[in-house]
Amino acid sequence: MILLTPGPVQTRPEIRAAAARDIAPWDNDFRPVYARIRERILAIAGGVPGEHAVLPLQGAGHFLVEATVRSLVDAGGAIIVPVNGVYAQRIAKLTRAAGRVVHEWALPDTRGVTAEDVRAMFAAHPDATHLGMVVSETGSGIINDPEVAGPVVRGLGKRMFLDAVSAFGALPFSMAEHPECDALLFTSNKCFEGLPGMGFCVARLAALAPGRAGSWSFDLHDVWQHALTHGWGSIRFTPPVQAIAAFDAALDAFDAEGGQPARLARYSANMRILSEGARAMGFAPYLDQAQQGPIILTLHQPPGFDLQGFVDALKARGVLISNFYTTPTPTIRIGCIGAVTPDEMHHAVAMMRDVMATRAAA
Amino acid sequence: MILLTPGPVQTRPEIRAAAARDIAPWDNDFRPVYARIRERILAIAGGVPGEHAVLPLQGAGHFLVEATVRSLVDAGGAIIVPVNGVYAQRIAKLTRAAGRVVHEWALPDTRGVTAEDVRAMFAAHPDATHLGMVVSETGSGIINDPEVAGPVVRGLGKRMFLDAVSAFGALPFSMAEHPECDALLFTSNKCFEGLPGMGFCVARLAALAPGRAGSWSFDLHDVWQHALTHGWGSIRFTPPVQAIAAFDAALDAFDAEGGQPARLARYSANMRILSEGARAMGFAPYLDQAQQGPIILTLHQPPGFDLQGFVDALKARGVLISNFYTTPTPTIRIGCIGAVTPDEMHHAVAMMRDVMATRAAA
Repeated sequence: MILLTPGPVQTRPEIRAAAARDIAPWDNDFRPVYARIRERILAIAGGVPGEHAVLPLQGAGHFLVEATVRSLVDAGGAIIVPVNGVYAQRIAKLTRAAGRVVHEWALPDTRGVTAEDVRAMFAAHPDATHLGMVVSETGSGIINDPEVAGPVVRGLGKRMFLDAVSAFGALPFSMAEHPECDALLFTSNKCFEGLPGMGFCVARLAALAPGRAGSWSFDLHDVWQHALTHGWGSIRFTPPVQAIAAFDAALDAFDAEGGQPARLARYSANMRILSEGARAMGFAPYLDQAQQGPIILTLHQPPGFDLQGFVDALKARGVLISNFYTTPTPTIRIGCIGAVTPDEMHHAVAMMRDVMATRAAA
Repeated sequence: MILLTPGPVQTRPEIRAAAARDIAPWDNDFRPVYARIRERILAIAGGVPGEHAVLPLQGAGHFLVEATVRSLVDAGGAIIVPVNGVYAQRIAKLTRAAGRVVHEWALPDTRGVTAEDVRAMFAAHPDATHLGMVVSETGSGIINDPEVAGPVVRGLGKRMFLDAVSAFGALPFSMAEHPECDALLFTSNKCFEGLPGMGFCVARLAALAPGRAGSWSFDLHDVWQHALTHGWGSIRFTPPVQAIAAFDAALDAFDAEGGQPARLARYSANMRILSEGARAMGFAPYLDQAQQGPIILTLHQPPGFDLQGFVDALKARGVLISNFYTTPTPTIRIGCIGAVTPDEMHHAVAMMRDVMATRAAA
């Protein structure tokens, strides 16, 4: 089976093998693995030791988003969320439930945030301290570029955090070059191609404060303090330790491939193959070419299209895609990320073509 | 390696094999697995369909405790926590950080909660609505018996939730027989011998209310509503899906062994072998026999004992035990849970004897 999904994505056999053993997280043979992962991520994220740190959190990426909002923003404080996709809506919902104010800024889900957007948002909501932005929206496939939004945030003397869950690892980002960024969030799955279960916040340590979170579980300041007290190889609370072991192996594969540039190149090649193949089959893309990121391709469903039937037929041919969509109108979404080669993507496109031909003939 | 730890515990090869594959959580082939796990747990916990439900949460057991407190107790409300171990202290800390009042009731960590304790606690703190109790404290090995505390709570018209993380599966509990119990908490690892990563709350549905949690991530009412809207096979937020697949396989092994009575019998046999072996080596147990649960054996460290050296020497002989303790005085703690047979426990005791003999000779 080839998984072409927004995540959990396809992984390499050696990653799954790394997870297929019993591990005691506090064991002295495992502590260096955990500490090493944090150092490796810090380097990939352009973090400055002492100024930034990698603060892991068990569970879903949503948990990490809530923990970040609680840890950066005082109760009652306000943030701005540009809403051009479902994950932005979720930042807003998580933030509001945590007792912070959210100014949602509605945008079409067919284009990324512009510099003008950011200026207008903060002009309208001067009480907001932070921009909370999703880098890659997996509903439509657009990218909100931190290189566009970041300089405006910085110029306004405001702060920013990035939900880069489906972006980081493939799209570049450097904490050192973005002093306005307090937190970069991502998970063990997605573009690093590990197993799901762990989230990571690359945090600017000066942005954290004790007692702000209103939750011990979601207090990233406490995650940091735990590391200072117990060592960077110590894990606060029992983790999905197999996912951590798999992540270390996933970083080995990441390095061996050539790091972020190589990964972006492979995903972009996958996207070209898929996009051209889909157009040739008569599918209309949901996004203009200029707005299309390299992570997810979204296609309009043709009139009378049966999504689950299409997914089932494709699955019977060894290719698994998402069986739901989050755009306002019916779409098909196909992932270009995960341990999928361009050759496998050519094969997947051929299988899509076969399904469409079979259905047309029926 | 034989793991004799409070957790993550040793697992069977078939459980790890079940996890060693890529899985899309929303896939129609996987949804029945997730739904089935919930039904199986409900039956094991003596839950009544429609009255109780299994509400899963990704991440550590601590997250599940916080979610339970937030979901059961209004902000500003009060609970009582009998504190005779470190996990009770953690319930207190999680509750307080979440903006609820905690009345901690200090007890020695060498005995379980009595009926008199429960009466005295609620008499002293009539504002408290709930007793939050740890069933098995893995610091010392004591058991706080819900069959002792529950009837008193019920008689007083109060409510109870149980952190049964290291107990349920081996120690019996029936939600139907404990109408005073609003929530029974446990995780995928521990006595069910799955992989870590998922927590499960068996909840009394009438005890939940919308909007109470002050956190979307930790809102168990929302977890329930998600199931009603999207089906019991649907997972809210990306989960550590390999741990879920492993848990289903772990339940197969649980059933094949003979369920809870068989598991308790095996752990009790492990405990007898370990306890007698340790005494024969001259170790003094931390607990009186009457207070000793079947999960964890805690031994006083002899004067001048080097715990890490002992752990390392035992590890070199293929047996891994915990390298830290949480009792007020120095102890050694050894787990009797996980996929460990009495034969393996005999072997582990022989290895301990070998380490002690080697050290005595040195």
